[in-house]
Amino acid sequence: MTEDTNLIANQFAELHASLENDDAQALAMGLSQLHPADIGDFIESISPDRRQLVWQVLSPEVMGEVLLEVSESIRPDLVAGMEPAQLVEAVHPLDTDDIADLIPELSDEVIAEILFALDKQDRQRLDTLLSYAEDTAGGLMNPDTVTVRENISLDVVLRYLRRRGEIPEHTNSLFVVDRNDRLIGKLLLRVLLTEDSKKRVGEVMNREPVSFQATESDKAVAASFEKYNLITAPVLDEQGRLLGQITVDDVVDVIREEAHHSVMVPAGLREDEDIFAPVARTSKNRALWLGVNLVTAIVASMVIGVFESTIQKVVALAVLMPIVASMGGNAGTQTLVLVVRGMALGTVSRQNARQVLARELAVSLLNSFLWAVVIAVVAVLWYKQPILALVIGLAMAINLVAAALSGVIIPLVVKRLGVDPALASGVALTTVTDIVGFMSFLGLATVFLA
Amino acid sequence: MTEDTNLIANQFAELHASLENDDAQALAMGLSQLHPADIGDFIESISPDRRQLVWQVLSPEVMGEVLLEVSESIRPDLVAGMEPAQLVEAVHPLDTDDIADLIPELSDEVIAEILFALDKQDRQRLDTLLSYAEDTAGGLMNPDTVTVRENISLDVVLRYLRRRGEIPEHTNSLFVVDRNDRLIGKLLLRVLLTEDSKKRVGEVMNREPVSFQATESDKAVAASFEKYNLITAPVLDEQGRLLGQITVDDVVDVIREEAHHSVMVPAGLREDEDIFAPVARTSKNRALWLGVNLVTAIVASMVIGVFESTIQKVVALAVLMPIVASMGGNAGTQTLVLVVRGMALGTVSRQNARQVLARELAVSLLNSFLWAVVIAVVAVLWYKQPILALVIGLAMAINLVAAALSGVIIPLVVKRLGVDPALASGVALTTVTDIVGFMSFLGLATVFLA
Repeated sequence: MTEDTNLIANQFAELHASLENDDAQALAMGLSQLHPADIGDFIESISPDRRQLVWQVLSPEVMGEVLLEVSESIRPDLVAGMEPAQLVEAVHPLDTDDIADLIPELSDEVIAEILFALDKQDRQRLDTLLSYAEDTAGGLMNPDTVTVRENISLDVVLRYLRRRGEIPEHTNSLFVVDRNDRLIGKLLLRVLLTEDSKKRVGEVMNREPVSFQATESDKAVAASFEKYNLITAPVLDEQGRLLGQITVDDVVDVIREEAHHSVMVPAGLREDEDIFAPVARTSKNRALWLGVNLVTAIVASMVIGVFESTIQKVVALAVLMPIVASMGGNAGTQTLVLVVRGMALGTVSRQNARQVLARELAVSLLNSFLWAVVIAVVAVLWYKQPILALVIGLAMAINLVAAALSGVIIPLVVKRLGVDPALASGVALTTVTDIVGFMSFLGLATVFLA
Repeated sequence: MTEDTNLIANQFAELHASLENDDAQALAMGLSQLHPADIGDFIESISPDRRQLVWQVLSPEVMGEVLLEVSESIRPDLVAGMEPAQLVEAVHPLDTDDIADLIPELSDEVIAEILFALDKQDRQRLDTLLSYAEDTAGGLMNPDTVTVRENISLDVVLRYLRRRGEIPEHTNSLFVVDRNDRLIGKLLLRVLLTEDSKKRVGEVMNREPVSFQATESDKAVAASFEKYNLITAPVLDEQGRLLGQITVDDVVDVIREEAHHSVMVPAGLREDEDIFAPVARTSKNRALWLGVNLVTAIVASMVIGVFESTIQKVVALAVLMPIVASMGGNAGTQTLVLVVRGMALGTVSRQNARQVLARELAVSLLNSFLWAVVIAVVAVLWYKQPILALVIGLAMAINLVAAALSGVIIPLVVKRLGVDPALASGVALTTVTDIVGFMSFLGLATVFLA
């Protein structure tokens, strides 16, 4: 199959049509031609009341695969529509690490049945997996690996693999361990296939593969995979014993989630917000964020309130003041986004924060000069009052410099306080630029105009 | 080596110290212990005047590897500090697809020398690669693949590989082609290693591997890799002939760039903005964006200007009006971020836009009722004027609904106009919520209060 976006769009359109027409047969037919990942996408793109219609058409084996692919926010609804026996049938054939991912959604009864159906080795593996948090290397790994000893020849390895008959999906290397299961190297399949088969494993293995402690964060794992172009990497316990391997396909999901996080969280959205989640739940989540913003907006308004009598005398101030605040917010957000991103990627740290600040201040000085002049010209053309023009120009310059300062300092402080910079920095920044903008503009106006 | 973030942070700290102390020997020593990717990170984290100090310490082979790892925005500066002969020595040993990535930075003289140093096959490969845009499957692929025929036995394949002596990095499968080089299947290395070696390739190969047309976009490629958990995939020309393969490590870079894009572009930043780029260049880029925002802020101010006489009569309006605009902006941004993200991921399309709109409107109705009441209570406590409270409550409700509408409609329209929704939607949205906010609040006040 040549992967073809249009083809899939057409298939989706046909499925939408089958749903409209209540044509269960056409629906089942269309779904049977899709990859589980595409079925998951289709289910996410339709409204919740229709999801059950699609879901009931699928066979349990496909259900299991699709459950792995859909967003975590819609999994509970899909699981809720299944009988316990159906769930066991759907989940049991999956890889151990995939079963571990689904465990949080399952009832105790279903978990017990699945555990009963697994063999002893798989049950132990599942236990190990569940003992690590989901966002760690241990939670990300697959316990299924192929291990060999250092002193055997490649010929022996080849015969062993053929007798074994199966190598876990996405594996591109075997792991070399000692008697105590401690990792000593990594034997790439492509090396095994090209080196002289008389050689011993120890001669051709990679002796210092990048490896991870089971407790390391999944973000650190993702950063290393990206940096060192890894396909698979071993996960070790504190004694250096091999626990499992992480494959790049799971890391890609972590990277995608991080991307989600950095886009959704600054807007006060939940990372896994589903476009068809119940209205009540969504409204509640968003209301919280709007409440925080209301408080900051009221604080900024109180600043304006201080200058009521000045505004009464010069109404033009009320007209122009949002410009000063808005430009500060926009300029500050540019600095902020750059710094938060740099902090996430590790290029901005406390070590070079002073240099970053110096550079952002230099940029803001140039821009504050430019926009002070422009807005002064606009103000003088609009209101024909040179002193008003001077006041707004000065206020603009002050606010743009304050914006640059805040854009660098706020995320560093927020992080030090142990809060996610992506979540809190934006609100804090616009509060500062609103307050500084209104205060400098209306304050200067009170001195020079009122 | 156990990958250890602290270890690298320590190494960076020592390198910073060596730079401070002008200790070239310690610097060279420290750098020699780092992976090229880490050297790239270190160079990006120091100011441009010091980068040359670090750069000159590296050997040409390492320079080549580091050039591949650093951000495109700082490559030109590094290349500028190298002699032509040094550049040829750095670039020539790289893989053909990596050379292709660096070509845009090189002078004609250097390119000619490198072409001269390549053998005929590699020169042809480089030509093919350069004929595809960087952001297509063709630009992303590595022309180096291992191909086999369908009718030979696995034994023969094994012997062929051992004689060939090398398989390209990250390869996890061989490609099966016919006489005309047309792709007919994919033979996974792990299948080759476990199946009975008497079997023929055609019996055990994967007959319908996901493949890409050379002209497909790199984003579509990344989405498929993510969805179908691919490690490598073949790239074909229009006749279905094999041109090369894409490996997941390059796809990870595409995903990371997309993430950059979705964070940086909405703030009006360049995707590859370097935290130490020259101040003048940065200021110019940002000024453009601030200019666009100034125009929209002035338009919003002109709306306020229409109501000058109303404000003169009731100064409280000037104090409270930013609250209405700000809440609209925040609520609208939530909807907008969700929709833009959904469009990028393909879960929001024109097919279900109406449903998304209905849901966002429902959420905004609930929230508009809530915040209308809250702000009315705040206003009545603050100014003791029930009618003012009624006016601001009503304006808030109107603006929150307008915000939800704009958050869904604006990105769809912007995309239809052929503009990047990430770039233009945010500015358009806040312009709408400012205008609607000021107009509804001041307009209602003019009717009921003035």
